[in-house]
Amino acid sequence: MNDRTLDVVGIGNAMVDVLSQAEDAFLEAQGMTKGAMTLIDGARAEALYAAMGPGVEVSGGSAANSMAGLAALGGGAAFIGKVRNDQLGGIFRHDIRAAGVAFDTPPATEGPPTARCLVLVTPDAQRTMETFLGACVELGPEEIDEALVAKAKVTYLEGYLWDPPRAKEAFVKAARCAHEAGRKVALTLSDPFCVERHRAEFRDLVEGHVDLLFANEHEICSLYQVEAFDLALQAVRGSCDLAVLTRSEKGAVVIEGNEVHVADAEPVKKVLDTTGAGDLFAAGFLYGYTQGRTLYACARIGAVAAAEVISHYGARPEADLAELVERRMARQPA
Amino acid sequence: MNDRTLDVVGIGNAMVDVLSQAEDAFLEAQGMTKGAMTLIDGARAEALYAAMGPGVEVSGGSAANSMAGLAALGGGAAFIGKVRNDQLGGIFRHDIRAAGVAFDTPPATEGPPTARCLVLVTPDAQRTMETFLGACVELGPEEIDEALVAKAKVTYLEGYLWDPPRAKEAFVKAARCAHEAGRKVALTLSDPFCVERHRAEFRDLVEGHVDLLFANEHEICSLYQVEAFDLALQAVRGSCDLAVLTRSEKGAVVIEGNEVHVADAEPVKKVLDTTGAGDLFAAGFLYGYTQGRTLYACARIGAVAAAEVISHYGARPEADLAELVERRMARQPA
Repeated sequence: MNDRTLDVVGIGNAMVDVLSQAEDAFLEAQGMTKGAMTLIDGARAEALYAAMGPGVEVSGGSAANSMAGLAALGGGAAFIGKVRNDQLGGIFRHDIRAAGVAFDTPPATEGPPTARCLVLVTPDAQRTMETFLGACVELGPEEIDEALVAKAKVTYLEGYLWDPPRAKEAFVKAARCAHEAGRKVALTLSDPFCVERHRAEFRDLVEGHVDLLFANEHEICSLYQVEAFDLALQAVRGSCDLAVLTRSEKGAVVIEGNEVHVADAEPVKKVLDTTGAGDLFAAGFLYGYTQGRTLYACARIGAVAAAEVISHYGARPEADLAELVERRMARQPA
Repeated sequence: MNDRTLDVVGIGNAMVDVLSQAEDAFLEAQGMTKGAMTLIDGARAEALYAAMGPGVEVSGGSAANSMAGLAALGGGAAFIGKVRNDQLGGIFRHDIRAAGVAFDTPPATEGPPTARCLVLVTPDAQRTMETFLGACVELGPEEIDEALVAKAKVTYLEGYLWDPPRAKEAFVKAARCAHEAGRKVALTLSDPFCVERHRAEFRDLVEGHVDLLFANEHEICSLYQVEAFDLALQAVRGSCDLAVLTRSEKGAVVIEGNEVHVADAEPVKKVLDTTGAGDLFAAGFLYGYTQGRTLYACARIGAVAAAEVISHYGARPEADLAELVERRMARQPA
């Protein structure tokens, strides 16, 4: 990545995913909420891990996955997030850099270990996650590189940052830096339960501090406490400059002022693991956005990137995303 | 696993694999020997890891993979091998136990970290490996649980154990215990370069100390320094009670005294990653062997287990192996 072409800096929880296949009965026996991300402490993480089947470790984290996707598409990406100086932290650092993302947040030298997310994938390709935040609780405003944020066209923040106490301050500082430099601030609501935990603050953010909002149907409905997607759509309209709402196989709706676009989802032969679908949709959209594409094209690039990541296990792209998007977009308008 | 039905105890290097996709040009630039397993030190491991693309971490180790496969088939399996008390060691321990294998070797509390094997998978599905032995060099005869070895129908040893200095003593002690208890000792030659490093000792082992020998075509040709498979076959005949020789898609040849069997390979739609093919063949063969099946059936079970593992990334089974073998073997003689 060339510093002069930094498109997006992502700020989020830096973690390693531990993926394992499980039956629905296992989730029930463990009292897990299917499809959700639940925060757990170190002791619960140990107990669940001991009960789980053999795992596969891959670097994860929502905004980190999006930055890896953006880099795979050819965009200039950087990431800010906190790991510990342990083996999992080394794996996270290696993988995000090897994906082409600039990552220079110094690891914590004491305190809890690198965060991990235990991901149980059921036969229906749904993922259910329990996250031990570990070293992520150490992220604070001192880690925000103001020059980096000022350079990025977009600062992309994950809602999950509202969970570790001091990361919120980092978030606020980054948003202020970005706006002072005339840049855009984007937020993803991350997860309906995350919205549940921080609804009032998220509404305030959406209405006053965020330029681009990413949310899926469940998240936006939770934000406005409505049942129907259309009601959420009317509520968000006008309160945020640009809202990008995703609806899985039903496609995406993009709203900017009076402009509204509806983009279809990309067909997928067999959905293997939905982990990372939203992260990669955001990556694709942000790539198009920072390249000056139309809003419709942005949403379609997001759809193609999301389709790739749900066709295999793991939340980061495996195929040559840039080539894939070029091939698919050549057949479409704009 | 029930102690009274311990079928096989595997002894080998305990390691975590780091899998990454790479082009042939990368192997050339790194001076790697394609298709081989090369031993490297910690500094080289750091340098290669830094140059590699994003990775996926999965538990590995040749004999450990075989024991995971044996357990997946329904056999009683145990493993002896040395990790460090670090995060990768915890991953290894969790995964092998979660696979149903008894594993009680205490981790080293000082010295080098848990071993890792950097596995580069090229587009032709070949794997090229560089291994940092780490804590494996701490395995010594004191780790051999004599009661466990005496209980197992077969003690299965990997040739790779000849690399770390004291593991050889562990190997010799285990073989002696097994024979004193009237049990069988099996050896896999592991890798043609491993044979190259220890040829004289391996020949001595095969001729005097081993009841079952597992080798692929390249390994057995290297052992006897011959070019043609048939020459190696004639050489091994008579020097080892039971030799199981694998030839990838050409199937396997099993020789016991005057008895010779030829078993076809199991067809595979698309070979994705050949890592673990030999390990899972051995698992299937040993499962049949300890269940008292015919030698032909043993080889076919091995072929089915090997076919499963090369159809996906990673060296441990993902499908329900017991069910798969039952289904495939129902259509075959014996």
